[in-house]
Amino acid sequence: MTFEIGLDLFGGDHAPECNLQGLALALEKDESLGITLFGDETIMSPFLKDFPLRHRVTPVHTPDIIEMGDSPMRAVASKPNSSIVTGLKYLKSGKIHGFASAGNTGAIFGAAVVVLGTVMESVRPCLMTLVPRPDCRDAIILDIGANADSKPENLVDFSLLGAAYARHLWKIENPRVGLINIGEEPEKGNELTKAAHKLLAGDPRVFFIGNTEPDKLFQDVADVYVCNGFTGNIILKLSETLIGLVHRLGFRHPYLSRFNYENQGGSPVLGVNGAVVIGHGISNERAVANMIFQTRDIAAAQLHIKIREALLS
Amino acid sequence: MTFEIGLDLFGGDHAPECNLQGLALALEKDESLGITLFGDETIMSPFLKDFPLRHRVTPVHTPDIIEMGDSPMRAVASKPNSSIVTGLKYLKSGKIHGFASAGNTGAIFGAAVVVLGTVMESVRPCLMTLVPRPDCRDAIILDIGANADSKPENLVDFSLLGAAYARHLWKIENPRVGLINIGEEPEKGNELTKAAHKLLAGDPRVFFIGNTEPDKLFQDVADVYVCNGFTGNIILKLSETLIGLVHRLGFRHPYLSRFNYENQGGSPVLGVNGAVVIGHGISNERAVANMIFQTRDIAAAQLHIKIREALLS
Repeated sequence: MTFEIGLDLFGGDHAPECNLQGLALALEKDESLGITLFGDETIMSPFLKDFPLRHRVTPVHTPDIIEMGDSPMRAVASKPNSSIVTGLKYLKSGKIHGFASAGNTGAIFGAAVVVLGTVMESVRPCLMTLVPRPDCRDAIILDIGANADSKPENLVDFSLLGAAYARHLWKIENPRVGLINIGEEPEKGNELTKAAHKLLAGDPRVFFIGNTEPDKLFQDVADVYVCNGFTGNIILKLSETLIGLVHRLGFRHPYLSRFNYENQGGSPVLGVNGAVVIGHGISNERAVANMIFQTRDIAAAQLHIKIREALLS
Repeated sequence: MTFEIGLDLFGGDHAPECNLQGLALALEKDESLGITLFGDETIMSPFLKDFPLRHRVTPVHTPDIIEMGDSPMRAVASKPNSSIVTGLKYLKSGKIHGFASAGNTGAIFGAAVVVLGTVMESVRPCLMTLVPRPDCRDAIILDIGANADSKPENLVDFSLLGAAYARHLWKIENPRVGLINIGEEPEKGNELTKAAHKLLAGDPRVFFIGNTEPDKLFQDVADVYVCNGFTGNIILKLSETLIGLVHRLGFRHPYLSRFNYENQGGSPVLGVNGAVVIGHGISNERAVANMIFQTRDIAAAQLHIKIREALLS
């Protein structure tokens, strides 16, 4: 099957150059891929004029630009002709199989929820990312910042969303779910984690292995780690910071390079009706290409449909 | 001035051996120091019999032992003759200047609050630790786990407690306070940090520099970083884990060794009426000696008295 992936020309600190280079890289690597490119035609036209793979790119002119500093919800409403909103509308109407952008995270996430809708009314969508581990496969951590405040039942949603990703993208039949906490015993933690522990332990849809302190993130005890978005965002940014510090001290290692955002693709939005991946703001061309591939893989797995099925079961 | 510091014979995974070795190390390094040792006389007696610095050690027989797995509050009530409770009573009555233990964190913290009382009725005591930074002096982070759930006004307390430590232990006249958050703008974050930001920005006693994301922990933008205990504990344990991973990959660096708990001493309890330091569970003799010195320094600074003055101002 061939996939048509929507790409935001504007998202990211190095846009549009890196986005165009990343697009070219992705098309070279995957010959069955098509890209619908959302952006300003005055930038796209000169690039596409001499681009050898021009026939596999569909440009869509979107004059509005949502800037990184824009208020997410306001931007979604006030800039309907932006690359982000238009791209998501294309996804909604089935013209593309997935949409990838390295732009304003809040705006993409908010627009995805508004334009695509959630897989079920009661579900809180969230953002996930991968945790590189030294001696075993990557793990999933979520939410990493879409929901700064979460309720205990949201953490159950996140568990189901993350488990669906592990099941359908990685073919892990029964993904193990750990709850990020500051102690291992069920009664440890704050009000949120104590209540979430009870819900998770009693939910037959979740293969719950219990509380996991941060050291367990890097051990093969779970496949999916759930937390509220505030905690997940702190974990993500602190990890990046510390690995960056070690890097600047002069240490290179294949394991640490797996923390490099370039190799990760981006952060999938889980819980909305469609394949959407948000890239790192500082994405270079390799990161953009990997973000496109990750979007393609999520679309190919029909993840949002599988998630709806899992939630209804 | 000479200082008499109370030491728990039992606290820590390598007790009592490392505690006795650490005690010896501390007495050798600081000739004006005296140690009151709380523990079982059948262990203390054979050690003290041949110990050359015997005249500077006062053994106090405390037959009860609070184990690491004991429920903190239950242990404090049911084991009044434990090293922890007895040591804190000695501190309360002025027989020692400070008390140090590498035992059950919850039990020491709980007993400190119960036996010593808080510096003011309304103040929530907390635990602090140091953040090593590559290009500038260490910073303070608090709370690191004493309060899993905090109210916005607790974060103001933590700011004042941390600033008092920086002012009186490090002689920083006007310590800068940053609020750990998942965005820099005042409106970013969860309900707790948004409300705390308002309180901190409006409090004339706090030199508030605003929200700080985790990368700012390692930059010279603040001296004191405040967060709720859940977040602080995650930050502490994730940092230890990642630095430990890098260490196991074979990288050594003077900066990273500053994350080593041995060099840190322990975690001071702030907000109670007395100098109490809780050591790392896996403390070795060097860590025990440094924990003793840190307790002495906090006692010498009369920190709890300065904190009360600051809170009353």
